[in-house]
Amino acid sequence: MLKNKKTVFTAVLFIIVAWVTYSPVEAQGKSAAGRTDRVGADIRAVLDKQVVAWNSGKLEEFMEGYWKSPELTFFSGGRKLSGWDATIERYRKTYQSGGAEMGKLEFFELEITPLGEAAAVVRGRWKLTMSDGKQPGGLYTLIFRKFREGWKIVHDHTSSNS
Amino acid sequence: MLKNKKTVFTAVLFIIVAWVTYSPVEAQGKSAAGRTDRVGADIRAVLDKQVVAWNSGKLEEFMEGYWKSPELTFFSGGRKLSGWDATIERYRKTYQSGGAEMGKLEFFELEITPLGEAAAVVRGRWKLTMSDGKQPGGLYTLIFRKFREGWKIVHDHTSSNS
Repeated sequence: MLKNKKTVFTAVLFIIVAWVTYSPVEAQGKSAAGRTDRVGADIRAVLDKQVVAWNSGKLEEFMEGYWKSPELTFFSGGRKLSGWDATIERYRKTYQSGGAEMGKLEFFELEITPLGEAAAVVRGRWKLTMSDGKQPGGLYTLIFRKFREGWKIVHDHTSSNS
Repeated sequence: MLKNKKTVFTAVLFIIVAWVTYSPVEAQGKSAAGRTDRVGADIRAVLDKQVVAWNSGKLEEFMEGYWKSPELTFFSGGRKLSGWDATIERYRKTYQSGGAEMGKLEFFELEITPLGEAAAVVRGRWKLTMSDGKQPGGLYTLIFRKFREGWKIVHDHTSSNS
């Protein structure tokens, strides 16, 4: 056995090719559940940070959860906004101008589902509690993408109970 | 040069390992634009089929665009439905019962964005034209996933102008 050098090299070559070809797929399968947990935790952290920022009245910090790009989209009712600037402008008008208040924000019923390697959809419910006791709320669908600087919302579709 | 058998085998081994390691990534890069076009065309076909079905009054056929699963989710305003059955039930109640009509459906401003290998987000606007001339409409965000039987909507978030 293995007296021939050619046989040794063929065997080594076969093992290396097989390892290189199959190991990434196998690793992917094994780590799929782990990846879902990790993506969930990372995105959850972005949303938690947004809630803390909102409840401290820090709109700019809240907006760090969004992709700072003209390609960010924000759908609310029948209104479609394009870009980070238009999105923060809407928040300013709705919650910071003319006696408006930001209220206390809470997120519920979060479902975070990875889509491919670098994207995820988040389904959830939002609720604001205002100083007069009113509680506007509704549902949202967020599309997250993973950038070098972390997970960012690239699309937000939000709707109201009322 | 190449007098030594060991050198030959090492070179062959190196070339094969390099080819196996790098070729899939290169192929992915080259075909990315083509894939976006293909995914766009496939999903567009599902939506076109839905519009034709709706405008022929065939709700069951329209519903073929949705994932026939209890995990399908449908968000409308502040209302959250789970499952294909609850979704068709809502369509029946809203558009087929008590003198309601389905109207003529149109989709506009479609943007289809692939997310990973087997998912995509679709942003668009819907409009119905009723026999009395009224035109309810709004925006939608759809999450599509690719199944063995084709692309299906797994989540629909829809909102109205009014």
